[in-house]
Amino acid sequence: MPQLGLLPRRACAALLSQLLRPPCAYSPGVVHCHSQGTRDLSPQQMVVREKVLDLVVSCFKRHGAKGLDTPAFELKELLTEKYGEDSGLIYDLKDQGGELLSLRYDLTVPFARYLAMNKVKKMKRYHVGKVWRRESPTMVQGRYREFCQCDFDIAGQFDSMIPDAECLKIMCEILSGLQLGDFLIKVNDRRIVDGMFAVCGVPESKFRAIGSSIDKLDKMSWKDVRHEMVAKKGLAPEVADQIGDYVQCHGGVTLVEQMFQDPRLSQNKRALEGLEDLKLLFEYLTLFGISEKISFDLSLVRGLDYYTGVIYEAILLQTPAQAGEEPLSVGSVAAGGRYDGLVGMFDPKGHNVPCVGLSIGVERIFSIVEQRMKTSGEKVRTTETQVFVATPQNNFLQERLKLIAELWDAGIKAEMLYKNNPKLLTQLHYCENMGIPLVVIIGEQELKEGVIKLRSVASREEVAIKHENLVAEIRKRLSES
Amino acid sequence: MPQLGLLPRRACAALLSQLLRPPCAYSPGVVHCHSQGTRDLSPQQMVVREKVLDLVVSCFKRHGAKGLDTPAFELKELLTEKYGEDSGLIYDLKDQGGELLSLRYDLTVPFARYLAMNKVKKMKRYHVGKVWRRESPTMVQGRYREFCQCDFDIAGQFDSMIPDAECLKIMCEILSGLQLGDFLIKVNDRRIVDGMFAVCGVPESKFRAIGSSIDKLDKMSWKDVRHEMVAKKGLAPEVADQIGDYVQCHGGVTLVEQMFQDPRLSQNKRALEGLEDLKLLFEYLTLFGISEKISFDLSLVRGLDYYTGVIYEAILLQTPAQAGEEPLSVGSVAAGGRYDGLVGMFDPKGHNVPCVGLSIGVERIFSIVEQRMKTSGEKVRTTETQVFVATPQNNFLQERLKLIAELWDAGIKAEMLYKNNPKLLTQLHYCENMGIPLVVIIGEQELKEGVIKLRSVASREEVAIKHENLVAEIRKRLSES
Repeated sequence: MPQLGLLPRRACAALLSQLLRPPCAYSPGVVHCHSQGTRDLSPQQMVVREKVLDLVVSCFKRHGAKGLDTPAFELKELLTEKYGEDSGLIYDLKDQGGELLSLRYDLTVPFARYLAMNKVKKMKRYHVGKVWRRESPTMVQGRYREFCQCDFDIAGQFDSMIPDAECLKIMCEILSGLQLGDFLIKVNDRRIVDGMFAVCGVPESKFRAIGSSIDKLDKMSWKDVRHEMVAKKGLAPEVADQIGDYVQCHGGVTLVEQMFQDPRLSQNKRALEGLEDLKLLFEYLTLFGISEKISFDLSLVRGLDYYTGVIYEAILLQTPAQAGEEPLSVGSVAAGGRYDGLVGMFDPKGHNVPCVGLSIGVERIFSIVEQRMKTSGEKVRTTETQVFVATPQNNFLQERLKLIAELWDAGIKAEMLYKNNPKLLTQLHYCENMGIPLVVIIGEQELKEGVIKLRSVASREEVAIKHENLVAEIRKRLSES
Repeated sequence: MPQLGLLPRRACAALLSQLLRPPCAYSPGVVHCHSQGTRDLSPQQMVVREKVLDLVVSCFKRHGAKGLDTPAFELKELLTEKYGEDSGLIYDLKDQGGELLSLRYDLTVPFARYLAMNKVKKMKRYHVGKVWRRESPTMVQGRYREFCQCDFDIAGQFDSMIPDAECLKIMCEILSGLQLGDFLIKVNDRRIVDGMFAVCGVPESKFRAIGSSIDKLDKMSWKDVRHEMVAKKGLAPEVADQIGDYVQCHGGVTLVEQMFQDPRLSQNKRALEGLEDLKLLFEYLTLFGISEKISFDLSLVRGLDYYTGVIYEAILLQTPAQAGEEPLSVGSVAAGGRYDGLVGMFDPKGHNVPCVGLSIGVERIFSIVEQRMKTSGEKVRTTETQVFVATPQNNFLQERLKLIAELWDAGIKAEMLYKNNPKLLTQLHYCENMGIPLVVIIGEQELKEGVIKLRSVASREEVAIKHENLVAEIRKRLSES
């Protein structure tokens, strides 16, 4: 198994430095970011989304997941103390009588609430939906306050690391399938993180605070992170330096072996449990043929409070940049981990259901695909219209309406101009502009002879077809193209 | 064109009386309605939704619509004074600093805002998304506070009634396509409503209030509506009685002709404009072959403030009830109309873009389809898994993992149990329960011979296939079934 050296990290850092641009730099085309930090999605963007989401959802279904949907808002109390330092980003609804409500912050907490509420002990589900976070509008990452998440989770008591490995396999399938260029999935375990903090001498009360500093290492230098830990969070400098030694480590299964030998970490029971699991995980990842995509990385912490075991985060190693293309911010494009204690927080008797899952960062992926399309100059069709109904003559509205209804009723995607007497040239231009491949033309001559003219927009070739054979001929043409 | 007599209305009234049951009576299966008036959607429900929405969206695309998405919340001020008496149902977000925000109440106002903001003068778009309304939880219609809407709208200055007729055609295509049984689309025009009020002597300041009473005629008797207008809204009894004469009228294009001759209504300029448009509309609907589905109905008012011209509402005339099936509430399953003044309300210079559109009441449709499936006892698969990977022996996890990865990489939907050593019977039972059609079995014997056993779950027939031919054989079997 190849050692993952310095190159990916360096390449990654260079790309991450792109993050320091204002949000609008990453959004192709004209995007009107509203003053409330949200935006409309144009038809062009919707085409990209549909394509990406189709691929993501079909992967989730390939792995046997069921669909599930939960409401946009939950009881406010349900969301508190689940998101660590980010809890302040939760949108609350106004108290208009009744329960206090908040917009969901992710899809994981509602899923855990669903499992507990319905006493579901086992479930593999996916959920595509929007979540809302009150990120500061000056945030550097081009984030909007409303964004889409695509989650896949496996709940249930199973043999160790088998579902966890499948989650990583899914991330690989999706990132490969989307052809976003080379990627790397960093893996760690919360128990190793905690063990590392313990053996370095971090007081337990500071675990989450220090973890959240370490988590910034992909955006900040070690020097700045160290400063934050020491000056702001009151960590002893020598403790910070010891952590500094660990968080530089990243590599494959060999690093796992190495850490088993680490004189300090190997003294910590929870860290050892985490290492055992990672060893098994790497074994399964090798069987899945994806171990070279995975890097055990001791700097990976993940900010959310609810993780209890293995954690992971996928980053793109290079943009699919071509000459002249603007480099794109990358950062995390998928992430997740194990959360064995979350369901119990919603169960009246505290019964737990172990869970592991992942979330695809589709918003970043949308931006990358949009940018790539923009650069390639590829014209995106925003409609799927197959046939246009035209006439060269005045007073043919009635005939056009009858004809288009015939096409619609045959399941053919058809349009016409909403004008009583449009000019033929206007009608043909519309087809060219919209990328409609076929035109059917009806005029006096055709009506008299019982035929319809069928025109190919690309070749401008026209043939007269008997009216009764028109639908069959159109279907034939469409199936050939 | 056939006259629509009393039968549909009577049938409809009988069915509408079903509305007076508590909400839970209409929701098949176990539905946990949360205290906040929302609910989770189970995998079974998600399957129904996916099916219905696929049909709806493919119809919208067949008519050349582009996709568009707007945020869940809008500026609060933007939503006020658009929804008449229902404005109190808008959810506000808590003031956490920044603009005052509200959850969207429908998809129409955000669409109009989008057109104005981007100075779009022409657009045919569809939008599937959730909207939120603070309906009282004791509402009799089984409504939830979060629900899905599917909208199709045509914006732009076009020749009269052509896009309007297309909207009605779309409603017919969708309702026929979903096979929900016979339906009827009531049509009226806001100018005819206003004209009727004017000639009956309703003061203009009371138009909207009286309109909203009339709108309840599908849920309340004329006697009760009359009482509300006279006792609560201060209408003179003789005026109420004159309105009563009009709102009984419904029929086809002949009724339009008849109203042209009405001595009072024909004196009103706006009513005449509405009648002219309806006459043209019926002409186009006849060309589309759907005029027998449409009823000009003077009792149709539609509560929303923004309508300016033609309005329509589709109702089911019968549930697809079979022997022993519980009757379902029906009511409106699609509605819409023309709103030529809404975009101008968002444009700084008041520039208008005429619009006409429709909304499919998919939530009611979901309930009907769910109920129908429940009654038929049809087992709904909630996953799409095609192949299960099993073993009859212990210590075959590694082989199963390698094999399942091979299937996933070939695009085959595959599952296995997350156990090191599952029993063969457990594995085969899982397939039967989940409706998985094929099982691949690997054991010592197969491994030695380089084959995999392929088993049909239905026939229990097993054949040994060379490992290298497995994927091809699976694909062949799946394409045949």
